[in-house]
Amino acid sequence: MPKKSSKTKDITSLIQPAVRKLKGYSIDETPYRIKMDAMENPFPMPPEIQREIIDSIGTALINRYPDPSAAKLKESIADLWGIGTKRMILGNGSDELIQAIILAFGGPVLIPTPTFAMYEITSRALSQEVVAVPLARNFALDPDKMLKKAKETKAKIIFLACPNNPTGNRFSEEAVLKIAAKANAAVVIDEAYFSFSRKSFLPVLRDYPNMIILRTLSKIGFAGLRIGVLTASAKVIHELDKIRLPYNINTLSQTAAMIALRHPIILNQQISQLISARERLYNALSQLDGVTAYSSETNFILFRTTADAVSIYEKLKEAGILIKNLSKPGPLKNCLRVTVGTPEENSEFISSLAKILKQK
Amino acid sequence: MPKKSSKTKDITSLIQPAVRKLKGYSIDETPYRIKMDAMENPFPMPPEIQREIIDSIGTALINRYPDPSAAKLKESIADLWGIGTKRMILGNGSDELIQAIILAFGGPVLIPTPTFAMYEITSRALSQEVVAVPLARNFALDPDKMLKKAKETKAKIIFLACPNNPTGNRFSEEAVLKIAAKANAAVVIDEAYFSFSRKSFLPVLRDYPNMIILRTLSKIGFAGLRIGVLTASAKVIHELDKIRLPYNINTLSQTAAMIALRHPIILNQQISQLISARERLYNALSQLDGVTAYSSETNFILFRTTADAVSIYEKLKEAGILIKNLSKPGPLKNCLRVTVGTPEENSEFISSLAKILKQK
Repeated sequence: MPKKSSKTKDITSLIQPAVRKLKGYSIDETPYRIKMDAMENPFPMPPEIQREIIDSIGTALINRYPDPSAAKLKESIADLWGIGTKRMILGNGSDELIQAIILAFGGPVLIPTPTFAMYEITSRALSQEVVAVPLARNFALDPDKMLKKAKETKAKIIFLACPNNPTGNRFSEEAVLKIAAKANAAVVIDEAYFSFSRKSFLPVLRDYPNMIILRTLSKIGFAGLRIGVLTASAKVIHELDKIRLPYNINTLSQTAAMIALRHPIILNQQISQLISARERLYNALSQLDGVTAYSSETNFILFRTTADAVSIYEKLKEAGILIKNLSKPGPLKNCLRVTVGTPEENSEFISSLAKILKQK
Repeated sequence: MPKKSSKTKDITSLIQPAVRKLKGYSIDETPYRIKMDAMENPFPMPPEIQREIIDSIGTALINRYPDPSAAKLKESIADLWGIGTKRMILGNGSDELIQAIILAFGGPVLIPTPTFAMYEITSRALSQEVVAVPLARNFALDPDKMLKKAKETKAKIIFLACPNNPTGNRFSEEAVLKIAAKANAAVVIDEAYFSFSRKSFLPVLRDYPNMIILRTLSKIGFAGLRIGVLTASAKVIHELDKIRLPYNINTLSQTAAMIALRHPIILNQQISQLISARERLYNALSQLDGVTAYSSETNFILFRTTADAVSIYEKLKEAGILIKNLSKPGPLKNCLRVTVGTPEENSEFISSLAKILKQK
C-alpha cells in the first residue's frame, strides 16, 4: 500500500463557493398527531384502490430497472390532464424538474417573493444568481416590475407559482401572460396547486413557446410517490429530457401512481371536499379575533396574527398540531400557513387556535 | 388577454451550449425473453419476502411526503454494510449521487476509459469538462498517467469504478490508493459491483479524506427501487447533503428496501450463486472458438469476438436474448457484454452464441 500523503487533504475547499455558503432546506421532522404543514392530501386512498395498488406491486419485478420512459404512467397522466405523452417529462417530484430547468438554462433566475422556497434554494445550490421582485402588499404580481428586472438582469428563467405558495393567491392571468409574451426567458408556470383553483395555463401553452408548465401528484394524494410532471414545446422537451437521469422514476412509484390515476372520480371527490373544507376553514379563521386570513385558491391558507406568531405556532405544536411557521421580518411577519386537513382536523385546529388566542 | 409577441420565441437558444450538443443516454427498451444487458440480479425475491414487502407497503401512507432523511432505510444499510448512518447520503440511484458530486466540485472530471458511461454523460450535461485517460490494453489503471493528467488539467474529481464497468476487472489496490493519496481532487470509488469481488475500499476510507465511496442496491436485486449510497468524510457529507433534493427517496422504495435488507442471508446466497455462475459462464465463453472472454470480478463478462460483434449481437436478439453491444472502433472493438443470468439463462445464451458462431 502506498504511503499516505502526510497532510490531511480537505477537499471541501474544492467545492463550489455557492454550495459551501448554502444552508440546506430544513424540514421539521418531529412527528405530530395532526400534520397540517406540508400541503398533503389528508385522505388516504380508499381500501379498494389500496388493494389494487398492492396487487400490482406484488407482481412488479424490483430486481429489474424501471421503465426509463415510464410509458404507462405517462399515459395515465395524459388521460387525467390532457397533456400529450410526447410533450411530457416526469421528475422525481417537481423538485427534480426545477433542478433540470435551472441546469438547462442557467441563471439569473427571477422570482417574485414570497414564493416557493425551492426555486431559490435550488438555484443557489447550482451556483446560479437569484433576482427577487417583491409582490405587492396584497401579494399581487406586477408584470411591469418583473419584466423590467428580467431585462435589466438578463434573467434566463422566471418562476411563477400559479397559484402561489405560501401566499395562496392566484396571480392575474393577464399579468402572467404579459410576462410570458414579453420576457426573453423561460417562463415556468408551477401549477402544483391548480387542482384547487381549477384554472390552468395549459390551454394557452401552445401560444407561448417560452412557457413551461409544472404539475405534481404530491398535492392530490401521492406526495410519497414523488412524481412531478413537466410540459412545454416539443423543442424544449427535447433539450430538458437530455438532462433527466435515465431511470429517475422508480418501479414502485410508476406502478402505484398508474393504478391510482385510474380512479379520477375518487381523486376529484377528494379535491372537491378539500375545496369546501378550505372555504369553511377560511371563514372560521376570519372570524377569530387577532387573525387575518388570506383567501386561497390552494389546499392551504396563509394567515397573520396580531400576537406573536411564533409562540402561537409553538403552542399548537404542544397541542399536537403541526402547521408551518413563516414568520420573519418582512412581508410574512407573524404569518403562519395551515394545510387544509380532514373536517375533524380542521375543527380541532380552529378550536386549539381559538383557545391559544384567548390566552394572549 | 395581452397580445402575443409577434415573433415565435425559441428559448432553446438560451439553453447551455453543452446541453444542446448532448445526446441523451440511450437505452434499448425492446422487451426480450432473456434480458442479460443491464447487470440486474436475475433472481426475484423469494415469495415470503415479497409478501413482507407488500404487507409493509399496504400500510405506507403515500399521501404523505417520504421521510426526508430515510432514517430507517439508512439503518438497514448500516447493518448490511457497516457504513455509519451519519456518514451516508442516499440517492435516487447512484446516478443522482454522481450528479451531486459533479455539481458540488465542478470539473474538470478525470476518468479512465473505457468506464461507466454516466460519468461522462452527466459531466457534459452539467457543462463540465471531461478528461479521459485510456486504460492499458489489459484494462489496467496506470496511476502515474492519471496523476499527471489530474495535475495538468487541475481535475477536481476522479471517478474510479472498482471493479470497472464495462471491462469487469478490478484495478489494483495499489494504483487506486496511490491516486487517492496524491491527487488534489475528490477521488470517487464507485463500488457498484463490490459484492461480486468481495473487496472494498471502505476499510481505508478514514485514511483518505478526499475519498468518496459509492454503492448501490441495483446490482444485488433492487434496480427498480433506485437506491444509491454514498459515504465519505463527515465534512464532505455535510456539503454534498446540501445539494440533495429534500425528498429524493420515495416512500415505497424506502419501505421495500428496508424490508428486503433485513434478509442478508438470502441476498448473500444469491450473490454466491451469481459468482459461481459467472465462473461457469466465463469458462464456457473461453472454450468457444472466436471468443476472448475477460475475467470478471462483477456480475457481467466482457468478451471480444473475432467475427463482427454487431451481427452476433443482432442474431442473439433475434433468438430473444438481449446483451449489450459495446463495439466501436478503439479498445472495445468487437466487444460485447453479457450480464450473468440464472443458470438456465446462461446455458441458453452459451448454446445460442455457439450456434451463431458456427454459422460464421
